[in-house]
Amino acid sequence: MADPRLDVLAIGNAIVDVIADVDDAFLESEGLTKGSMRLIDAAEAERLYSHMPSARQVSGGSAGNTAAGVAALGGKAGFIGQVASDQLGQFYIHDLRSAGVEFTTAPGDFGVPTARSMVLVTPDGNRTMNTFLGAAQHLPASALDEAQIAGAAILYLEGYLWDPETPRYAMVRAIEVARNAGRKVAFSLSDTFCIDRHRDGFNALIDGGRIDILFANEAEIQALAAVPHLETAIEAVKDKVELLVVTRSETGALANRGGERAEVEAEPIEALVDTTGAGDLFAAGFLAGEVRGLPLDRSLKLGAIAAAEVIQHYGARPEADLKALAGGLLD
Amino acid sequence: MADPRLDVLAIGNAIVDVIADVDDAFLESEGLTKGSMRLIDAAEAERLYSHMPSARQVSGGSAGNTAAGVAALGGKAGFIGQVASDQLGQFYIHDLRSAGVEFTTAPGDFGVPTARSMVLVTPDGNRTMNTFLGAAQHLPASALDEAQIAGAAILYLEGYLWDPETPRYAMVRAIEVARNAGRKVAFSLSDTFCIDRHRDGFNALIDGGRIDILFANEAEIQALAAVPHLETAIEAVKDKVELLVVTRSETGALANRGGERAEVEAEPIEALVDTTGAGDLFAAGFLAGEVRGLPLDRSLKLGAIAAAEVIQHYGARPEADLKALAGGLLD
Repeated sequence: MADPRLDVLAIGNAIVDVIADVDDAFLESEGLTKGSMRLIDAAEAERLYSHMPSARQVSGGSAGNTAAGVAALGGKAGFIGQVASDQLGQFYIHDLRSAGVEFTTAPGDFGVPTARSMVLVTPDGNRTMNTFLGAAQHLPASALDEAQIAGAAILYLEGYLWDPETPRYAMVRAIEVARNAGRKVAFSLSDTFCIDRHRDGFNALIDGGRIDILFANEAEIQALAAVPHLETAIEAVKDKVELLVVTRSETGALANRGGERAEVEAEPIEALVDTTGAGDLFAAGFLAGEVRGLPLDRSLKLGAIAAAEVIQHYGARPEADLKALAGGLLD
Repeated sequence: MADPRLDVLAIGNAIVDVIADVDDAFLESEGLTKGSMRLIDAAEAERLYSHMPSARQVSGGSAGNTAAGVAALGGKAGFIGQVASDQLGQFYIHDLRSAGVEFTTAPGDFGVPTARSMVLVTPDGNRTMNTFLGAAQHLPASALDEAQIAGAAILYLEGYLWDPETPRYAMVRAIEVARNAGRKVAFSLSDTFCIDRHRDGFNALIDGGRIDILFANEAEIQALAAVPHLETAIEAVKDKVELLVVTRSETGALANRGGERAEVEAEPIEALVDTTGAGDLFAAGFLAGEVRGLPLDRSLKLGAIAAAEVIQHYGARPEADLKALAGGLLD
């Protein structure tokens, strides 16, 4: 097996975040569940946008954020995702490439614009996402560069990709290519509502031994295992994957590999602004360590540092110098 | 003369800001003058964009920022400006309307996209702007709603509008309509480089008695008067306008009306993030007071409060509740 050319190759929905501050009453009047991600169609996207306050646009998408985070930590990262040939698509491509991420998926014309997610941030820093998938849901398996996948140490996939049918097939094919090349496959459960929609599919992937590294937060691992208790859920899942990483917001995070378990506390922060991207950047930090062969506790610490940076500003991509924040941890 | 329906109607270039953090070395390598605004063509816009780091997009444009600020302070504000029928144009319209600004100019198809300004923010909070005017430079006099202009207490114009020929004619026509209706005309000098390009035109407007309220910063009033000394410059200009307002960054601001002069100190801030919009929001605060007939020192204080808010975050539109920050000043 040749040395990998990339550390992490992420596949995900290529989404521009349209972020606005709202109060809890706004969520209530729109009938939205705080902290959730829901998929909306073009008509609902237009309706909600006309109600929401002034916004800022930043590139996002869960796996794209993770790829940007890996690159910010000095790793070699790539991303596969579908944008349209429009201004939002250009903006998305620019941001990933200028973050140092290899991105070669050609923009496509499917009669729909580039995906955008209206992210409503409440004063407690929570984000409620309303995602119009647009071009992202058209990512075909034929857009995969199989040599690129075979050349990446870790293939990283977001659970959200399971929602639309076309990229779901692309994801299944990518897993096959990665495993045939002897690479690791990492998967993020993304969101409890996403698990509710796809529990059987996710469990089939995991039970089938096709996931090596599983990322979940506390609510997600419990939703997947269908038990309302963290340790019981971990117990139910941990032996089905090589490595299980569970994030617990301000309580920290833990990782389990076989009989080995490590925990880390959350990094202290000055002010919580916007939790968008916290899980994505935790995964980036952890993978940046894991791909270097660091011990679990150091990889967890890198995850905590990257997550702490991203929740202290709007937007889900790192703005500060993550390598500097990581100090000697990466050496 | 009927009571005005709007407090402030602003006309300006409708521009989306594309904001990125850079260091001084980046400005040097690109041959850019820190703190300036330069106009660029489509090819240069593409070239520079490909070099610059990941960015956030927020609606901007000098006079548009001022209109949003007036509305945030509870004033009735309108804006006239030209966008294209594209995603950036939709974004621009959304942000102004959701800020409570009346905006009725129809998007136009001129074969060019909506204007964008690449705003490069250095660690000292200074912004260097590279503006591709796109559709904004096509604002025709025929797009003016003359009843709207005649129904606004104050018509507010940005000096940048003088750069492209078509909106320059629109601006001259708007001044004529406002003056015929007995309304006040306010004008911002915008930028020293803009004054260098148009000193004769600006002086002709002012000497011709067509400007009632003139906004300038220290460097701009000196550039206009072509003297390197603040008080001499003020002396040379103050009797040509009814009201002269000069902002002085961290030194504060002053206003002169006939024999009356008032000064205000800058508001204390916690951290300087991005000075984009400081002058625009100062003008908003001042005009919100002036249109209520407040004394000069209170209008200046409102300007200082609005400017202090906008320089503590990225983007040139207010994010905090300006009415709350203004406390009892507006009563």
